[in-house]
Amino acid sequence: MHKKLYIPGPVEIAPDVYEAMCAPMIGHRMPEYAELHRRVTQHLKCLLNTKDPVFLSTSSAFGVMEGAVRNLVQKRCANFANGAFSAKWHDVTRRCGIEADLFAAEWGEPVTADMVDQALATGRYDAMTLVHNETSTGVMSPLSEIAAVMRRYPDVTFIVDTVSSMSAVPLDPQELGTDVCLAGVQKAFGLPPGLAVFAVARRALEKAKNTPNRGYYFDFEEFEKNDAKDNTPSTPCISLIYALAHQLEKMFAEGLENRYARHRQMADAVRGWVQQQGFGLFAAEGARSLTLTCARNDERTDLEALKRLAAERGYAIDNGYGKIKNQTFRIAHMADFTMADMEELFGLLEELLPRVRK
Amino acid sequence: MHKKLYIPGPVEIAPDVYEAMCAPMIGHRMPEYAELHRRVTQHLKCLLNTKDPVFLSTSSAFGVMEGAVRNLVQKRCANFANGAFSAKWHDVTRRCGIEADLFAAEWGEPVTADMVDQALATGRYDAMTLVHNETSTGVMSPLSEIAAVMRRYPDVTFIVDTVSSMSAVPLDPQELGTDVCLAGVQKAFGLPPGLAVFAVARRALEKAKNTPNRGYYFDFEEFEKNDAKDNTPSTPCISLIYALAHQLEKMFAEGLENRYARHRQMADAVRGWVQQQGFGLFAAEGARSLTLTCARNDERTDLEALKRLAAERGYAIDNGYGKIKNQTFRIAHMADFTMADMEELFGLLEELLPRVRK
Repeated sequence: MHKKLYIPGPVEIAPDVYEAMCAPMIGHRMPEYAELHRRVTQHLKCLLNTKDPVFLSTSSAFGVMEGAVRNLVQKRCANFANGAFSAKWHDVTRRCGIEADLFAAEWGEPVTADMVDQALATGRYDAMTLVHNETSTGVMSPLSEIAAVMRRYPDVTFIVDTVSSMSAVPLDPQELGTDVCLAGVQKAFGLPPGLAVFAVARRALEKAKNTPNRGYYFDFEEFEKNDAKDNTPSTPCISLIYALAHQLEKMFAEGLENRYARHRQMADAVRGWVQQQGFGLFAAEGARSLTLTCARNDERTDLEALKRLAAERGYAIDNGYGKIKNQTFRIAHMADFTMADMEELFGLLEELLPRVRK
Repeated sequence: MHKKLYIPGPVEIAPDVYEAMCAPMIGHRMPEYAELHRRVTQHLKCLLNTKDPVFLSTSSAFGVMEGAVRNLVQKRCANFANGAFSAKWHDVTRRCGIEADLFAAEWGEPVTADMVDQALATGRYDAMTLVHNETSTGVMSPLSEIAAVMRRYPDVTFIVDTVSSMSAVPLDPQELGTDVCLAGVQKAFGLPPGLAVFAVARRALEKAKNTPNRGYYFDFEEFEKNDAKDNTPSTPCISLIYALAHQLEKMFAEGLENRYARHRQMADAVRGWVQQQGFGLFAAEGARSLTLTCARNDERTDLEALKRLAAERGYAIDNGYGKIKNQTFRIAHMADFTMADMEELFGLLEELLPRVRK
């Protein structure tokens, strides 16, 4: 039985996306691929309002997250964390043999501009990593405020994971001054997993060229050289790129402002509903994600049982991630979802909750 | 206009593969994914007749080729090459900061057991890389003979790229004693690109654990730990894995011996047709690939013009790779192709060749 996905990625895929994915296969050295590549990367530049290149990586986002630190840390990296994925980035950085320190906020709290300022003021770092929207906790850190601080540290490379926010909220890498702004497509883009996209500032591309042992698969210079020919270093996941071309066209047809408003409206509705049902919100006020809501479980709701009952009805819901599993649950409101999908979930859960509460 | 792909990958995709790719999306932490993962990896173990784990990497094959040297070279690597992709592997190895030497045969010649023996007898190497079927030249090196030599060097890790041979010819990593046997799925497996599969011997997994700075995305220990839970380190390309499950079922339904025989029959037919048309065979006798044939161009055929005319008729054909472009052309006979597809191509080319010959 198909379960409709309300988990925060992979997300539900629209039938027209599958159709786009099944366009006839082409060779990646054929002019047809160059045309597709150019169309997709130009649309991504429009989405991100940037003149910097946007690259396509046949990998999940963590591949590019590893690639970014391999390419851009020459001295020491400050990894800011406030949840599972941002903390994992620190672990990944160290596993590459890169010197790095972890600066961690409590789960549920944002990474703040002050935290960043204090860490970078030590002068020890030439790069930092930040997760804009921490999917494990539903916290969206104040990217603009952090970007303002980063302007005071022009020699510190600014690497931002927008895995679960890109395309759902306005992001302007040039305005923010990010060096790398990356995302996977299985979240807000509404695509099957297997493709990551990332915008890289020119100065970061120059820096990368002087970093030793970058390898090949995630080497930024290779991406740049191949992108100049509307191509990729290795054989790309062509079917997903077809689907991305389609989703980007849908985004512009919807209108980006409408798209952002739709996400805000869904976020408001879910937060309201969560509280109306007697649950708290896990993320601190002012730092709540616009693409997923992390609810704090009360002491009388059996989330495992709720998930099981929902599954029987054809719905996949989440019951928390990592150390806050079953203490929280997350509702995704991103990609192609609309208010009607939210209402459908509320109706289901209102029916099931009384059956799983003590 | 759709062009039927006779290039050596990406290959033509069967409609039923697209259908399989569009199964409803699931979360990779849902039991549905674990079931799919187990089914696919068990079928891959059957295909390769191995009890060693077979991992799924969301990347093209070069990601795993880089990962293999990052995980398994501790001292110095011998890269054996006889074409563009095997030579590139040497470059990739060096870009990872790994000490390595290139041992190159002429393009068109195989890597021989003697070459391997001579290089490894120096005692300088703890790992070697070999491309079984060099796609740029249509040469299949004598893997069994090389494997026999490798038995004399039990301390040298044996890393083999079977990108364009796996599933088209019998491969038995345990019998051969390979440490890594890897492939991309956009060649003989008949799938869209974006997924690589690789069998790793237990002793190689143990060795990897003691190699520093392996990173995360291609870390073999991470693959092993996650595969034990029927999962992957990072979000996998689920749609392609659905399609792989389907293709593996088709392979077993066809029967592996029948599948291998079909590839041999197509290879024989293409070699015969190429010579009948007055072209030579680029690959040395006894080392000709069973999945693609590289024809040596004569001096009177304009391959660019041939490719253009074929394109107008809805066919994508190849006109050589790298330094032998237009001096050679390659015909793929792999994946779901049958003799009927070969006859279709012969008919087309017999009609077009008189128009492009001086």
